[in-house]
Amino acid sequence: MHFTVFGYARRKLTDEELREMISKTLTCRIDESENCGDKMEQFLQRCFYQSGQYNSEEDFSELDRKLKEKEAGKLPNRLFYLSIPPNIFVDVVRSASRSASSPTGWTRFIVEKPFGRDSESSAELTRCLKKYLSEDQIFRIDHYLGKELVENLSVLRFSNLVFEPLWSRNYIRNVQLIFSEDFGTEGRGGYFDNYGIIRDIMQNHLLQILALFAMETPVSLDAEDIRNEKVKVLRSMRALQLDDVVVGQYKGHTKGGKSYPAYIDDPTVPKGSLTPTFAAAALFIDNARWDGVPFLMKAGKALHTRRAEIRVQFRHVPGNLYKRTFGTDLDKATNELVIHVQPNEAIYLKINNKVPGLSMRLDRSNLNLLYSERYPREIPDAYERLLLDAIEGEHRLFIRSDELDAAWALFTPLLKELENRKVAPELYPYGSRGPVGAHYLAAKYNVRWGDLSSDGT
Amino acid sequence: MHFTVFGYARRKLTDEELREMISKTLTCRIDESENCGDKMEQFLQRCFYQSGQYNSEEDFSELDRKLKEKEAGKLPNRLFYLSIPPNIFVDVVRSASRSASSPTGWTRFIVEKPFGRDSESSAELTRCLKKYLSEDQIFRIDHYLGKELVENLSVLRFSNLVFEPLWSRNYIRNVQLIFSEDFGTEGRGGYFDNYGIIRDIMQNHLLQILALFAMETPVSLDAEDIRNEKVKVLRSMRALQLDDVVVGQYKGHTKGGKSYPAYIDDPTVPKGSLTPTFAAAALFIDNARWDGVPFLMKAGKALHTRRAEIRVQFRHVPGNLYKRTFGTDLDKATNELVIHVQPNEAIYLKINNKVPGLSMRLDRSNLNLLYSERYPREIPDAYERLLLDAIEGEHRLFIRSDELDAAWALFTPLLKELENRKVAPELYPYGSRGPVGAHYLAAKYNVRWGDLSSDGT
Repeated sequence: MHFTVFGYARRKLTDEELREMISKTLTCRIDESENCGDKMEQFLQRCFYQSGQYNSEEDFSELDRKLKEKEAGKLPNRLFYLSIPPNIFVDVVRSASRSASSPTGWTRFIVEKPFGRDSESSAELTRCLKKYLSEDQIFRIDHYLGKELVENLSVLRFSNLVFEPLWSRNYIRNVQLIFSEDFGTEGRGGYFDNYGIIRDIMQNHLLQILALFAMETPVSLDAEDIRNEKVKVLRSMRALQLDDVVVGQYKGHTKGGKSYPAYIDDPTVPKGSLTPTFAAAALFIDNARWDGVPFLMKAGKALHTRRAEIRVQFRHVPGNLYKRTFGTDLDKATNELVIHVQPNEAIYLKINNKVPGLSMRLDRSNLNLLYSERYPREIPDAYERLLLDAIEGEHRLFIRSDELDAAWALFTPLLKELENRKVAPELYPYGSRGPVGAHYLAAKYNVRWGDLSSDGT
Repeated sequence: MHFTVFGYARRKLTDEELREMISKTLTCRIDESENCGDKMEQFLQRCFYQSGQYNSEEDFSELDRKLKEKEAGKLPNRLFYLSIPPNIFVDVVRSASRSASSPTGWTRFIVEKPFGRDSESSAELTRCLKKYLSEDQIFRIDHYLGKELVENLSVLRFSNLVFEPLWSRNYIRNVQLIFSEDFGTEGRGGYFDNYGIIRDIMQNHLLQILALFAMETPVSLDAEDIRNEKVKVLRSMRALQLDDVVVGQYKGHTKGGKSYPAYIDDPTVPKGSLTPTFAAAALFIDNARWDGVPFLMKAGKALHTRRAEIRVQFRHVPGNLYKRTFGTDLDKATNELVIHVQPNEAIYLKINNKVPGLSMRLDRSNLNLLYSERYPREIPDAYERLLLDAIEGEHRLFIRSDELDAAWALFTPLLKELENRKVAPELYPYGSRGPVGAHYLAAKYNVRWGDLSSDGT
């Protein structure tokens, strides 16, 4: 395959300097025997640099000229990856598409969040992008969609007979989508403060997983069929109520002699910021499959653990014969399907089992699939998958404009209300399990967070 | 707890000699620190011996006298365990019940198979036992019912919401009940030859597991409620056709320089015996839950492995989105629930999973529960559980007379037809996977034996 990689930015760099920067990030995954060093060198020789302004069509024409030189008459496809602040998205897309589009092949643009900060700004961004690009040229990355176990979610549901019959309000009591980081903004809170955890994690990553989880069976695995179903789920969702949301912000904490800073201690964060670093929300899908089933989301920074997971709690067994055996704590006896997205990829189904021995004691055991045991090879990074998909023109794991609109439509009224009312976040200590408000929210819908129970690992 | 153990047989032994015999079979399961030796000694001091004829009421009166001496005014309950040939069952029950029943406590009798060899002889045995005993005094042991994973079958089904909705013809394609031994009769075929593998394994052990597996939800876990449901299943079963049965007998075989004898080489087996050492059968339950689902049984001696397991093969995914990914071999892509009864107790659910990586390749992985990992302590022997249950008067794991009648009613016509027609068993080499006829039988019902597939471990 013939390809070149061009870096483009304002600063002046030579090709060699760029290669030097790139080479520091390359790691060897293949055996030494396969001449890893040679392969790296071959890759680096295909890397070039062009400096230019983001809004200069002339500068992009210069890039175009150099690209043509490298393309040397081959079918020239071009993929632009915009790793830039959102305020210059449109400038770059305009200049690049006008001056550096491929004359005969395809031209595609990968953009990364934030895609606006509410319905209006997102719609405006989409409108501007569409002045220069058609929908199928735009690849909006949500890197969670490239994660192995998120990719596997549809495989689990649709290629296994044992799951699909259970996948509805008839058997599922609640679904939990949990994201937690064990570090704070650590001096880089400037960008974050303008968005907050709801925009940064919930409105995109967790909502995307929810849509994949809850969608109806698509006509096929083609991108448009899957995205059509995701949009349907998002559009079936009930407007988010302020009552169904808890926001939090981490405060300073001293543990084991070490002290951890509060969010507002971050020098890049404005004094007195009310931006949430934690949020929990209860969402509902008002369709035939999911009516009344709480989908609980939880996302936070500076918590006690780093984890992303999906937990599916099943209903109680009706007329449970083993009621007396469980005592009064039937809640702990319900089945749970857990999908560990990261780290330590795993799938497990918690079931009740007889404890071997002469008495009739039941306990919960896991039917396990640990990826590290079953698939000892390294799992590719989400971006590897997504870049490859963009090259292949596969849109399945990218966000379509109408999906984005629906996602913003769900969160925008809530975000405005939080901001207009200046809702103060509940403070929680750095490294803790988050604000207790999240438990009251869960309790309101008869839910227990699975990740905080004694067996929630 | 105050108890004594009496040995009773025709030969003359002193208490000491009996204790000597028993002590050789005792093993230490508890820590040495817990004075295992002392505990063994205390147990042996409670063991006594009484010699007597099996049909002598006088001899049993002598036993009664000694028992009273030991009981010393305590509430005297008595449990007789008949480890004797079936032809003296009735003599012993008559003599013991008349002369050595407990005067004020309960008197119970544990009997082991064979319970007759067909409907008539079984009914006659039951009729004779009932002359002296009421139904609740009789404990017919089927030691498979005492096995940990057979006990767990009802727990799995009835205490887990995720299984019961799948437990019917709607989702289950076939059920396989497999028993294999990796040794032959080895010079002890005299008893076996009179019964054969169908009576020895299928009509009792495998059929009992089938009944537990397939029964409707009982009113409660009480013995009579469970046994009522098992009888219903047995009575709903379609009469077994000769066409749906394959019988086999092992022949001599030389492997790795070692030669293994044929069944008919066993000196205790009559020349030219047609007794099956292997059988496979397809059974059907004509009720609303199971109509049309083949229950395949397979049992054999001198096979390549020692194993007892239940395999539940689920149906194909209707309208499978991943059809193209599986290619034409959708059969291998169906889910399977496997319950390893022995050895290496385990439960696993075979599911389809995405192979991690950049392509969309699916393979089968197991959601596993390995008992040796989860429950490293020793699992009690089936007989420990059953003896304890008999002492406690718990009939759940013992066979009631009407269950036995129903089980014989299913197999007797087939057994008579096999014998009347002198159906020759298909020979298979000692240590092999059994006669190929078993595969044709499975194929007739669109089934593949799960234990013989490449991933059938």
